Amino acid sequence: MSLGVELHCRCIKTESRRIRFIEKVELIPPNPHCDKLEVIATLRKSGRQVCLDPEALWVKEIIDKITNSTQ
Amino acid sequence: MSLGVELHCRCIKTESRRIRFIEKVELIPPNPHCDKLEVIATLRKSGRQVCLDPEALWVKEIIDKITNSTQ
Repeated sequence: MSLGVELHCRCIKTESRRIRFIEKVELIPPNPHCDKLEVIATLRKSGRQVCLDPEALWVKEIIDKITNSTQ
Repeated sequence: MSLGVELHCRCIKTESRRIRFIEKVELIPPNPHCDKLEVIATLRKSGRQVCLDPEALWVKEIIDKITNSTQ
């Protein structure tokens, strides 16, 4: 029996295509349950949650754009 | 009766002091219900949600740090 912590990441795979109509983005840093950063977008209208690739340039751009969309 | 859309922002006020032990951060861009960017942190252990000031430098630093914490 391995004594390692059983990891429970929320994202199994990430969406590579650029998505639009994002209602919100959740940033979940690595933690005891999941050893990698997870970025989860919630889509407007459908409310569907989509895992984004934290390494993808367009994801970083979206996070930047949102963070600087103060008005 | 004003025909303006009634705004429902989730954040009434924001926490100015630097907070730690963040489990996740939600970025909610301006939308029809709320005309400003909202940044909401969920704290580890308590699960309490705290609104952060999107303009504060330490908040931008935390978002950067999380976004670049891929491993």
